Amino acid sequence: MDIPVVENVLKVNDEVAAMNRAALRGAGIFTVDLIGAPGCGKTALIEATIRALGAQGVRVGVIVGDLATQRDAARMARFTDQVVQINTGKGCHLEAHQVRRAMDRIDLARVDVLFIENVGNLICPVGFDLGQDAKVGMFCTSGGDDKAGKHPYVVVESSVILLGKRDLLPYVPFDLEFFRADVRRLNAAAPILELSATTGEGMAAWVDWLAAGRNRVAGAAQACGAQ
Amino acid sequence: MDIPVVENVLKVNDEVAAMNRAALRGAGIFTVDLIGAPGCGKTALIEATIRALGAQGVRVGVIVGDLATQRDAARMARFTDQVVQINTGKGCHLEAHQVRRAMDRIDLARVDVLFIENVGNLICPVGFDLGQDAKVGMFCTSGGDDKAGKHPYVVVESSVILLGKRDLLPYVPFDLEFFRADVRRLNAAAPILELSATTGEGMAAWVDWLAAGRNRVAGAAQACGAQ
Repeated sequence: MDIPVVENVLKVNDEVAAMNRAALRGAGIFTVDLIGAPGCGKTALIEATIRALGAQGVRVGVIVGDLATQRDAARMARFTDQVVQINTGKGCHLEAHQVRRAMDRIDLARVDVLFIENVGNLICPVGFDLGQDAKVGMFCTSGGDDKAGKHPYVVVESSVILLGKRDLLPYVPFDLEFFRADVRRLNAAAPILELSATTGEGMAAWVDWLAAGRNRVAGAAQACGAQ
Repeated sequence: MDIPVVENVLKVNDEVAAMNRAALRGAGIFTVDLIGAPGCGKTALIEATIRALGAQGVRVGVIVGDLATQRDAARMARFTDQVVQINTGKGCHLEAHQVRRAMDRIDLARVDVLFIENVGNLICPVGFDLGQDAKVGMFCTSGGDDKAGKHPYVVVESSVILLGKRDLLPYVPFDLEFFRADVRRLNAAAPILELSATTGEGMAAWVDWLAAGRNRVAGAAQACGAQ
């Protein structure tokens, strides 16, 4: 039995991730690795985001990881035809080679923003580069105000921190200042975007952030192509 | 650098878990490994359970795992003095040797039911025996009705499935029949207990199940001691 060691796995992963990044950036695609606990609302957020970006003419593709079922892909396929589901079995995170295979099934010329919805897990996905432009860590009001402090590594590595399910605030104990203070202590640079995919509250700032990322990457791809 | 292989890690873990189990059963303690996503309500459930079992004269100890912070231990220390926090750093699950070290800091003669609150993660903790009598998988209404089907391994391995935050049902989309059907398909034997630590709804059946487990283990320990 051939048992690869952890160091080697990470080295190979980084090489494949670099290839993914080159291909995605070359196509002018802004790619987000969305990391959050099971049930924090990643899929609902992506559904709402596809609609909001679509209204601006920005086309979204999705690669979604789950242990089992095609449920999330089926949900998102109602809003975009560029969706690939990866079933990881007992695998607790996505790796770059899985994303690479999924990319082969996406028409990159028809995508402006690519979401990689990672397996629902706040821990293991953090250590694996997939070729994304930004990692985005997602929490939710119903999950409690203490979770950023208890999961510091995803906060440290994220370019933006999302707090979803803002519409549930009246029904759950959640101290916004306590949550924000944890995030600030761990990552002073990342914006904290509080939103609700259900009511649409706070979605505009998130959509603006994605559109700006897309414009930056597309601009760079065009400049390189023009040289 | 010495890099232990996965197979060896699991073999050593199983041996230490067997030692833990022998020590805990010998002391007449019923031990539960509580596994659930971050924010599903594990700590709040244990707090409410300590109070409810305490009213019946059943004493509870807790070993709690988190990446960082002593927050959960501090919360539960309000209700029992037999609490040990394990900080795993980047570790995504508890292992038997960590539980063994924590057991050294608990007065086993003063505990009837021991909770091991695993790191918030529905995936990685499932594969590691800690020496528990039962694994208990916990979901919550605000996490969505599709999560049992998307996390089948914890459902298969659990002796009981808990659905927490029942009090939030009016505010979230959650089809109870859909959730129950997923659980039944994966594990027809495990009871599904729907409850709320906040309102107390459904807590009686959970407390009865724990008390029955405690009586079974204590009876067996007494019979062995009497021989």
